[in-house]
Amino acid sequence: MDTSLPHVVVVGAGFGGLRTVHCLRNAAVRITLVDRRNYHLFQPLLYQVATAGLGPTDIAQPVRAILRGQRNLEFRLAEMTGVDFAAKTLKTSTGDIPYDRLVLAVGGETNFFGNASLDRNAFGLKDLDDAVRIRNHVLYMFERAVHENDPEARRALLTFVVAGGGPTGVECAGAFSELIRLVLIKDYFGLNIKDVRVILLEGSNSLLPMFPEKLREAAAGTLWKKFVEVRFGALVADYDGHTVTLKSGERIPAETMVWAAGVRAVGVVDRLGLPQDRQGRVKVTATLQVADHPEVYVIGDVASAEMGNGQAYPMVAQVALQQGRLAAANMVRSLRGGGPAEFRYRDPGTLATIGRNAAVARLGRLQFRGWFAWAMWLAVHIVFLIGFRNRLLVLINWAWDYFFYDRPIRLIMHDGNCPWERCLRVSPGCATPPVK
Amino acid sequence: MDTSLPHVVVVGAGFGGLRTVHCLRNAAVRITLVDRRNYHLFQPLLYQVATAGLGPTDIAQPVRAILRGQRNLEFRLAEMTGVDFAAKTLKTSTGDIPYDRLVLAVGGETNFFGNASLDRNAFGLKDLDDAVRIRNHVLYMFERAVHENDPEARRALLTFVVAGGGPTGVECAGAFSELIRLVLIKDYFGLNIKDVRVILLEGSNSLLPMFPEKLREAAAGTLWKKFVEVRFGALVADYDGHTVTLKSGERIPAETMVWAAGVRAVGVVDRLGLPQDRQGRVKVTATLQVADHPEVYVIGDVASAEMGNGQAYPMVAQVALQQGRLAAANMVRSLRGGGPAEFRYRDPGTLATIGRNAAVARLGRLQFRGWFAWAMWLAVHIVFLIGFRNRLLVLINWAWDYFFYDRPIRLIMHDGNCPWERCLRVSPGCATPPVK
Repeated sequence: MDTSLPHVVVVGAGFGGLRTVHCLRNAAVRITLVDRRNYHLFQPLLYQVATAGLGPTDIAQPVRAILRGQRNLEFRLAEMTGVDFAAKTLKTSTGDIPYDRLVLAVGGETNFFGNASLDRNAFGLKDLDDAVRIRNHVLYMFERAVHENDPEARRALLTFVVAGGGPTGVECAGAFSELIRLVLIKDYFGLNIKDVRVILLEGSNSLLPMFPEKLREAAAGTLWKKFVEVRFGALVADYDGHTVTLKSGERIPAETMVWAAGVRAVGVVDRLGLPQDRQGRVKVTATLQVADHPEVYVIGDVASAEMGNGQAYPMVAQVALQQGRLAAANMVRSLRGGGPAEFRYRDPGTLATIGRNAAVARLGRLQFRGWFAWAMWLAVHIVFLIGFRNRLLVLINWAWDYFFYDRPIRLIMHDGNCPWERCLRVSPGCATPPVK
Repeated sequence: MDTSLPHVVVVGAGFGGLRTVHCLRNAAVRITLVDRRNYHLFQPLLYQVATAGLGPTDIAQPVRAILRGQRNLEFRLAEMTGVDFAAKTLKTSTGDIPYDRLVLAVGGETNFFGNASLDRNAFGLKDLDDAVRIRNHVLYMFERAVHENDPEARRALLTFVVAGGGPTGVECAGAFSELIRLVLIKDYFGLNIKDVRVILLEGSNSLLPMFPEKLREAAAGTLWKKFVEVRFGALVADYDGHTVTLKSGERIPAETMVWAAGVRAVGVVDRLGLPQDRQGRVKVTATLQVADHPEVYVIGDVASAEMGNGQAYPMVAQVALQQGRLAAANMVRSLRGGGPAEFRYRDPGTLATIGRNAAVARLGRLQFRGWFAWAMWLAVHIVFLIGFRNRLLVLINWAWDYFFYDRPIRLIMHDGNCPWERCLRVSPGCATPPVK
């Protein structure tokens, strides 16, 4: 590669980072793409891995495979640890990388709002580890329940709490309910389905805030029909791994809680010394640059760009994709001596699925629900998934689930070197020495 | 279930255990199947998971899904810890299980022959964890090599040693070579393919001892054509994670070694106080029973049944399947007051693949090699794989690899809570606390 060309360093191979890199494919720059994973993850389908509908490999695609044709690019597997803005150097786990232009697209993580016991005992749902851990854990609860004679303990094993009524929470609760009622119940014929509860806790008084009211109500109604108990005004105070405590004082015995009630920018940006919003996102100009460092662009979940009404753009894939394109364009302009353009979001609408034949969709002013919205959801997700093979395999898995009421990936995969209970819960458990 | 029926406890849901259970589906017994995994693993294709050709979920099938129709059966997810023969009780991680008849089909594990440094630094290839760890590690070596400036260090990163010239070693070495030369080299275009070495170490003077001489030579020749360095008479003395030391004193710098040079019965059988052979397998009568405990049957990799020539049957799936059927039949006979039959192995032949269009096959006196043997290998493995969906997905993956020279699963999946280097090597590393 021509080392005299300006060096653009892009951190993060999510929707935003990949789009930036792609838009720079014909630019007179050399690019280094940095990610701590060697794959791009299709996050919108993560909940399907957690609920045994898809395998982890179906929704991940190697970065090098995606970008194989792009000759002005190098990929570097490394974790960002900081930035020296004065020296224009990115700090990583495998050494420093000097840059002329930097694009931070490092994404979001689960926000436990500093509650350590929540962090330890509830499951986040932001990466493949999370999803596989949830799958393992849920299936393991059924294996325990089928041999549990104490009815109280059995009900706690079979109570699955999802906190947060946004798209992730709604999709996850709907998918749990279908996994259990359509599939697992056939595997565990000794269990009484009435012992099973799926509870969706939402702090406000409606689900899916980004949807029009009619669709929000439709979503709640559909969840009820799928036997998900939807609780509004339910704020979680604590979770010790066995009992969910609400702010009201109510206690729900449950061995499983998925925390989908908060996201924030990944922790590493806290160390950058840049102004952040309440979710830890870096405040950027309307041109997606950092005010004091115009050579640094921030996009996607990690960027706090104001929509004009005082609020920041939502943390969704479409915003990241469009910001990635603009960051690339602005960089090319600045290298040619031109001024940057401002970000204007073209909202293509929004979609959420609640289960088979059920979804809600808003496209501009049009609203859809039921089967048609669900078919639209399927089509959009297949089209945006990267890689023809992944599309094919996901389609086959979905068709399989749909026609046979099956979830084929119900495998409990724990690392053989950890004792059972430890590998299912969150991280620190794996510090236990292997039993032989 | 009718608790007055005799209770048959089968430990292990591998080929042998599943066959036993299946053959007892109409017998007047109640069965408890115990396994520490909730899935049946199709071990013959494990090396394809290690070499990024298949995903882990493609070759595993939930036990409950396989046995859903069988009403005289309960499945129990638990790890066997011992047997109290006097009290006729199986000891497990989740409590005791009394039995009237016991079938031990707990399988094999990698045999490091007590060499602790080998155990720690080399990869075994006996379960899904092993396979995913190898895949992660190999891909990570390429990520490191592409940014390594020291040529010596780079060569060590790109040297892949496989120890053991049996089917696993041969298949693994062939698959590594194809993964690298046909796929990875396109991802890492900065690397010189001449720096890459795949070395197959075999202690004796031929590969694949169970094959006739002509096929053994054909296999070695095919490996050479695929740029695998085959070394005969090469006995491994030690491996410290960086350098393989041979008994001859020769040292091979290599950051990766897969140990396919030994299998033994799983460690738990050492605690049973039963006579064992050199591989830890339990010595059984010709009727597959334990001499002093005729109510205990031992089958598959964990059984040492004499072939008549003083040797035990090989640790292969076909032996386990046929022994499973006989154990079931003998149990039914004994419950009816009849005498047991002796095990007679009907050898259906043997197959090993070396890569695309290349395999060796022996069927009775017939010998095949090249494309035809390879097609036969494909057909046999698809037929024996359990689950229509798995068959379909494996076929699609194979077709994809074959026509596009691709290995789509080249994903490095490490648990986000462990530092990189730790999670790729074998187990004890994960004891390191998470870095945030």
